[in-house]
Amino acid sequence: MISARMMKMSEGGSAIRAMFEEGNRLASLYGRENVYDFSLGNPNIPAPEKVRSEIIRIAEDTDPMELHGYMSNSGYPFVRKAVADNLNTRFGTSFDENNIIMTVGAAGGLNVILQTLLNPGDEVIVFAPYFLEYGNYVANFGGVLKVVPTTEEDMFQPSAKALGDAISEKTKAVIINNPNNPTGVIYSESKIKELSAVMQEKERLYGISIYLISDEPYRELAYDGADVPYLTKYYHNTIVGYSWSKSLSLPGERIGYLVIPKEADDAQLIYSAAVISNRILGFVNAPALQQRLVAACLNEKTDVEAYDRNRKTLYKGLTDCGFDCTYPSGAFYMWVKSPDADDNTFAEKAKKYNILFVPGSSFACPGYVRIAYCVSHDMILRSLPAFKKLAGEYKL
Amino acid sequence: MISARMMKMSEGGSAIRAMFEEGNRLASLYGRENVYDFSLGNPNIPAPEKVRSEIIRIAEDTDPMELHGYMSNSGYPFVRKAVADNLNTRFGTSFDENNIIMTVGAAGGLNVILQTLLNPGDEVIVFAPYFLEYGNYVANFGGVLKVVPTTEEDMFQPSAKALGDAISEKTKAVIINNPNNPTGVIYSESKIKELSAVMQEKERLYGISIYLISDEPYRELAYDGADVPYLTKYYHNTIVGYSWSKSLSLPGERIGYLVIPKEADDAQLIYSAAVISNRILGFVNAPALQQRLVAACLNEKTDVEAYDRNRKTLYKGLTDCGFDCTYPSGAFYMWVKSPDADDNTFAEKAKKYNILFVPGSSFACPGYVRIAYCVSHDMILRSLPAFKKLAGEYKL
Repeated sequence: MISARMMKMSEGGSAIRAMFEEGNRLASLYGRENVYDFSLGNPNIPAPEKVRSEIIRIAEDTDPMELHGYMSNSGYPFVRKAVADNLNTRFGTSFDENNIIMTVGAAGGLNVILQTLLNPGDEVIVFAPYFLEYGNYVANFGGVLKVVPTTEEDMFQPSAKALGDAISEKTKAVIINNPNNPTGVIYSESKIKELSAVMQEKERLYGISIYLISDEPYRELAYDGADVPYLTKYYHNTIVGYSWSKSLSLPGERIGYLVIPKEADDAQLIYSAAVISNRILGFVNAPALQQRLVAACLNEKTDVEAYDRNRKTLYKGLTDCGFDCTYPSGAFYMWVKSPDADDNTFAEKAKKYNILFVPGSSFACPGYVRIAYCVSHDMILRSLPAFKKLAGEYKL
Repeated sequence: MISARMMKMSEGGSAIRAMFEEGNRLASLYGRENVYDFSLGNPNIPAPEKVRSEIIRIAEDTDPMELHGYMSNSGYPFVRKAVADNLNTRFGTSFDENNIIMTVGAAGGLNVILQTLLNPGDEVIVFAPYFLEYGNYVANFGGVLKVVPTTEEDMFQPSAKALGDAISEKTKAVIINNPNNPTGVIYSESKIKELSAVMQEKERLYGISIYLISDEPYRELAYDGADVPYLTKYYHNTIVGYSWSKSLSLPGERIGYLVIPKEADDAQLIYSAAVISNRILGFVNAPALQQRLVAACLNEKTDVEAYDRNRKTLYKGLTDCGFDCTYPSGAFYMWVKSPDADDNTFAEKAKKYNILFVPGSSFACPGYVRIAYCVSHDMILRSLPAFKKLAGEYKL
């Protein structure tokens, strides 16, 4: 009796989810310490201590009516102002509270902006490999996903030419994720300029607006001083989606925001429609306590050095085993070429050694796998002999 | 450049929202204490003191990785178990954690269950007057809303015959809201039995499943010992949506749940699809800290006596002025017959006396208005002379 779409999705299941269940099964058989689960992007660095002290301060100091009551569907004005000011200080932008909508995580924000923009049949372009949920979000509103592959030769950077070829008069949006899940690649400033030029050219050609939706939960996870360009400065029709899931290790709390800059076409209309969308999709508003919390923690940072140490240890360990890895510049994922023709077979074989990771097929990019290194350093060290044995199966 | 549907909604605006802005305008002109704003269903009773102490305890005692990390998209198993046990104790049901999905408020839960059930073109029946957001939620998934009026003669109780006439082979769900917003009416056990009988008869007739979606944020707000029947006990295909927005005064925190009982047709399939829907609509999971909080506060109660005192004072005050009111049995709304042929005109005239309430047209029931008495008792007392003057305009 359920909807045909949801029936199909129930049958499909989620590969990442299945991994999670498999991890629990193996842990019950062999003990948690003997299972090397690299499948989930769940930060292993705890939230900064200030998160705890601010929750307590907010609960102690705030009138419960103010603390837990309704506010504007866009979020508290003082929180939006604090977010805008923080972005302006860091990136030289000039946002104010009327450019910010507080959202239920980045996933909530992406659904809100897609509902706001899409008419059924409108096309949304993504670059593969990509987070498969984008396809579900686009389908929620009758949009059509167009997938543009990136290649190892291009270091998984998107091709401006391929983007131009994919854009049609039905293109409404392009989603990019920078730093990238699953490749760990950061799109450089020159790459962003190329993409921007192509989109502007196509906007003129077709007389349309093409919105660049920048999904940025990994913005603060950049290594070796890498610069992550702030896209509103490069392309007028950029809309930013953000989440504190990774930067403050709050993935369960569902708190993020959208930036709708005033230079975007129909910016005011998009803003007011997105606020309505936030309401009618059932989010209503971002969780009240979490809004106050992030406003008080805007200058807090997660322990990027710990992820960096994991990155270096895992990269050296895997390349020493003979695996072919993309050296990540950001996020906390290692993108590894499958030594097996079938990445699913490779992931299955890894399970024999209690190693869990996600096949690239789950990111629309077969032939690779994603190894999430937001895990304890110790687990990485313990896993390396198992990776060595796995490499042996392929005579690497 | 925005979607046609959102463009239309932006133009329409929200009457309740407009009231809110008007309240702020009047307050800036005449002082907040001289404005009698009865427009919003925002509880004025603060959250119980235990909410504050439990937030602090949870922050102090819980490992931040556990407190703020991802969990199952359905919510923490221990929270779902605690909710199920609490319902079983109170209502003699036999739920377990596999019947409960924690949601981002009731609004999130309703969107999740509607996405789970609806194919485009499926019909969803509501009884007017009704919370207009139901129409938006149904439209999010291509459903078609069918509105069945209730009447003052029937004390705004739904008619089983009218329901039967409205059901077709395309009917997928019926939404009821008990206690009712905006009428304050509670549907009695005998009424529920009548509705259940009709739905079962039509299920057999058409060979379909018709789900009764019971939206219950006002369950605990029942006066004079009124019984609010627990609907899963009366109709096999009942799905309950709940929120702690009113019962713990946490509307800004967005925390609620869905109950999918095992006796519902395709219960397991609905449950697993609803968990996927929770993920792909971008909720991902209900806010983590709030899940722990409500589990610790399941036996806390809001101050129903305070609302009851408001109810009695306002009812007496308004009827003494000559207004024709439905005496509410639950929720915190007074449903008042408009003495003006046009309820919008009546609401406009009320603004001259700094009184704000919502026209019944905003609930698909012209000719009445909704007066929300989740306000300070003092404001009700202060407002009565203004209501007296308003009554004078109509020579009541």
